[in-house]
Amino acid sequence: MGQVAWKGLFLSLFDYKTEKYVIAKNKKVGILYRVVQLSILAYLVGWVFVVKKGYQDTDTSLQSSVITKLKGVAFTNTSELGERLWDVADYVIPPQGENVFFVMTNLIVTPNQRQATCPESVSIPNALCDKDEDCPAGEAVVAGNGVKTGRCLKDRDSIRRTCEILAWCPVEKRSKPKKPLLASAENFTVYIKNSIRFPKFKFSKVNVLATDNESYLKSCRYSTEHPYCPIFLLGNIVRWAGSDFQEMALEGGVIGIQIEWNCDLDKAPSECNPHYSFSRLDNKFAEKSISSGYNFRFAKYYRDAEGVDYRTLIKAYGIRFDVMVNGKAGKFNIIPTIINIGSGLALMGAGAFFCDLVLLYLIKKSNFYRGKKYEEVK
Amino acid sequence: MGQVAWKGLFLSLFDYKTEKYVIAKNKKVGILYRVVQLSILAYLVGWVFVVKKGYQDTDTSLQSSVITKLKGVAFTNTSELGERLWDVADYVIPPQGENVFFVMTNLIVTPNQRQATCPESVSIPNALCDKDEDCPAGEAVVAGNGVKTGRCLKDRDSIRRTCEILAWCPVEKRSKPKKPLLASAENFTVYIKNSIRFPKFKFSKVNVLATDNESYLKSCRYSTEHPYCPIFLLGNIVRWAGSDFQEMALEGGVIGIQIEWNCDLDKAPSECNPHYSFSRLDNKFAEKSISSGYNFRFAKYYRDAEGVDYRTLIKAYGIRFDVMVNGKAGKFNIIPTIINIGSGLALMGAGAFFCDLVLLYLIKKSNFYRGKKYEEVK
Amino acid sequence: MGQVAWKGLFLSLFDYKTEKYVIAKNKKVGILYRVVQLSILAYLVGWVFVVKKGYQDTDTSLQSSVITKLKGVAFTNTSELGERLWDVADYVIPPQGENVFFVMTNLIVTPNQRQATCPESVSIPNALCDKDEDCPAGEAVVAGNGVKTGRCLKDRDSIRRTCEILAWCPVEKRSKPKKPLLASAENFTVYIKNSIRFPKFKFSKVNVLATDNESYLKSCRYSTEHPYCPIFLLGNIVRWAGSDFQEMALEGGVIGIQIEWNCDLDKAPSECNPHYSFSRLDNKFAEKSISSGYNFRFAKYYRDAEGVDYRTLIKAYGIRFDVMVNGKAGKFNIIPTIINIGSGLALMGAGAFFCDLVLLYLIKKSNFYRGKKYEEVK
Repeated sequence: MGQVAWKGLFLSLFDYKTEKYVIAKNKKVGILYRVVQLSILAYLVGWVFVVKKGYQDTDTSLQSSVITKLKGVAFTNTSELGERLWDVADYVIPPQGENVFFVMTNLIVTPNQRQATCPESVSIPNALCDKDEDCPAGEAVVAGNGVKTGRCLKDRDSIRRTCEILAWCPVEKRSKPKKPLLASAENFTVYIKNSIRFPKFKFSKVNVLATDNESYLKSCRYSTEHPYCPIFLLGNIVRWAGSDFQEMALEGGVIGIQIEWNCDLDKAPSECNPHYSFSRLDNKFAEKSISSGYNFRFAKYYRDAEGVDYRTLIKAYGIRFDVMVNGKAGKFNIIPTIINIGSGLALMGAGAFFCDLVLLYLIKKSNFYRGKKYEEVK
Repeated sequence: MGQVAWKGLFLSLFDYKTEKYVIAKNKKVGILYRVVQLSILAYLVGWVFVVKKGYQDTDTSLQSSVITKLKGVAFTNTSELGERLWDVADYVIPPQGENVFFVMTNLIVTPNQRQATCPESVSIPNALCDKDEDCPAGEAVVAGNGVKTGRCLKDRDSIRRTCEILAWCPVEKRSKPKKPLLASAENFTVYIKNSIRFPKFKFSKVNVLATDNESYLKSCRYSTEHPYCPIFLLGNIVRWAGSDFQEMALEGGVIGIQIEWNCDLDKAPSECNPHYSFSRLDNKFAEKSISSGYNFRFAKYYRDAEGVDYRTLIKAYGIRFDVMVNGKAGKFNIIPTIINIGSGLALMGAGAFFCDLVLLYLIKKSNFYRGKKYEEVK
Repeated sequence: MGQVAWKGLFLSLFDYKTEKYVIAKNKKVGILYRVVQLSILAYLVGWVFVVKKGYQDTDTSLQSSVITKLKGVAFTNTSELGERLWDVADYVIPPQGENVFFVMTNLIVTPNQRQATCPESVSIPNALCDKDEDCPAGEAVVAGNGVKTGRCLKDRDSIRRTCEILAWCPVEKRSKPKKPLLASAENFTVYIKNSIRFPKFKFSKVNVLATDNESYLKSCRYSTEHPYCPIFLLGNIVRWAGSDFQEMALEGGVIGIQIEWNCDLDKAPSECNPHYSFSRLDNKFAEKSISSGYNFRFAKYYRDAEGVDYRTLIKAYGIRFDVMVNGKAGKFNIIPTIINIGSGLALMGAGAFFCDLVLLYLIKKSNFYRGKKYEEVK
């Protein structure tokens, strides 16, 4: 090719090529197409842009830190423990004030356990025996408290005989109080401080209201009237989660405290506020299933003057609170805007495809339009 | 413009405009295009809809609550501790039964430590000395147990001299038992109760089989035959994670228990079941690296009759279990369905573009087709 | 229809239909279109493929395990506690070495608390009284330490009268030391071992450098010169988070240690390295707000020779470190590649639509082009 030809080729690069359209003066399909176009436009504007905020870049990788602090005391007077006052250091486990905390509301105490031999509890099927041969020495009791010594004993308070075991003796009695010991835990309060940060947008916020009124923050209680107060009454949390506090306090359970941050950073930072919701996380219909509720055992270890260890075993029932934070922040960004407009327009192509089907195959004059749309070349 | 013109313009809005097509009677390109179309259709139907369930709206923001409970006792008889029985309150740390729990399988006990002065352990390089000047008073021993007092001492059992330190004395002896103390932890069981909730679909489920057969849930053990039994043998968990229990019990380690919920909520709720998998999370090839395995130190504090504190330091080796829950639920929704169909059709356009390239530039008669496709206007 | 007609229909299936284009020899629009095309191409190649690695399948569901271990001792000499050495078992709470750990740097000790009656602290507004009637028996002191007994007492050291309470007595004195007790915690080190696994790609890695030089790993300290050393100086962590250690040690606080794994698995595994960043998670400007900093109370329980429980209450101030791991791995995969190319081409359609608007409505000869593009059929 000569220079002229090359030049022509180069210039033709800048010719604009546009699809040739056929105008079908068919009002039905025309209206159908406009309806489809309007639907797509409405979807694009209404759903993608207004509802889903498709013009925003989003950040869901929230950095969150939760500090919790309980307040409240409870007084109990039982035959076992005498008059006793329970404060935060007694009933909060673990004490660190992290996002998961447990409030002890009921307990079975087995004091002065020592390494010794004693009869196993009669409530454990595997430990029942008639004669010494039923208790092979050295075998651990299945789901029990110790290792069999080889003897079959009669417990003081029981008519049934159980294997003697080497264990922390005496073993725990399986009798649970009928009503929760720390019933007044309903009035305890928890202060939840939640600092969040959206790293992509370098935006930080705390759930504690920025107010100079310090006494408000000391005396307020979260409720629908005070949605930004960070102090919660335990009884309210449980009620909002749809459970009964006294019932939960007896058997234990797990409550989830969801904190949701849904922030539109195109608006003012003061519009970015936490939303709290509460739900019961353990299945409350699990009563018929094994180990319903929530409880665990722990021990306090002591040493007597002779240097021998003994312990107080505590089976603690109570409510575990899991504070879970999630959030999403959005801010205008040109790239998702372009992508969403682009894919909206691509959807228009799908609409045209659908109308074409109607025009070319479903209406009366479709044969005629087919001929016009498709130009045969030979 | 007159009224008539406006009316014409308005009416022309409802004219349907459709692209004019050129039919190229070229079977090769035609077949190629059909193949491309079929591939895209197959991809759309097979991959996007059947495999990836693109017609569903998904929720991956799972709310999960894990309660764990261990059972089992171990009997040990060592020269240091004498006959001793270990139960749940002794070997589970922390006791709360959260999703991360540690089972102590081996330990180095240093009893009766008091605040005093004693020679530092010879195994710490920084504490070795020849004369008092090597031990500047008040300097902390690097990676050691105390603060130097300024004297260089000869330990009873050693020929090497080390600095005297102010510390909890006597310091820990760096000798680890050759075999794990609580080797029988292999037979301990853990009951894992996992309640989940998909908030978007308001769907809740528990990993405990809904059965009236309570004794099944008390006696079953998870295995491939019993995939919905929530009670696991520790030995099995470690074996399924590809490790040897006795070896891990000696040095410690971390095991991950993944619970995966992959729920198709278009099906019955009973089809939504957990899938368990087990893996070793600490690198087991780290033996040559520093601090292989998993261990930590904690102390039990006592006070004697004179009111002086002393403690028992315990270096605990054992297995940490991390229960991790993740899940995904999907349910039919019209919007993702439309979006996926739309983007599938958009892909067809890309296919047509590719076939155009073939038709217009790669085949023999391409010049002819180019002329027909592109109509020049002047 | 006859057989011939059916055959014709079948053959026509393999006719290739291609849009008819009109070449508008308008250089302005042509250049505009090429510019749009090039922009989209640049966006597709530069942003989608090079920056966002759109040709890769990604896995963000990281499995991570964190083991932390602190080292360091601190010596204190106070009137209250005497000469005392603090080691890891004393100041790390909880001791397990999980991903969240707390280093105690300051504390208020209230020793020998017993269940008894004593006057409430004067700093609690609700407990102030003038006469016995101000102290209704059995009522809990709001935000206080116990339950009122009904008497109004004069505290030894105070001129104000407060209600007598049943509580753990004596109550805690609200006086915080002016400088942190464990100021030398600045020199403590923490070893962070982080094993990760991307399950989709079956890729595992540890943040500990795979080196034979064991002494390097024992003596190195993380810094910009040693970015792959897993041992961190607490003082440095706090400084990098933009805070002052001594100030934080006094009041407490929360520091986040982010470990980010951003792995391109198309490259060598040795290129997949952790990136550390540090930030303060509690709002440090919260001084004016209630309960600034970070502290919590816990107790050590003892039993005297008569079997009566007493305890030492400790209000611990310190720094909580939250190790957070997140990551993303990408590997070449044909499906996202196709999807991204497809949606890029779909975007071209949007570009053509925009240029059409210019050609048909905005330029001088637009009327002429409109006539050529749209072919009317009657």
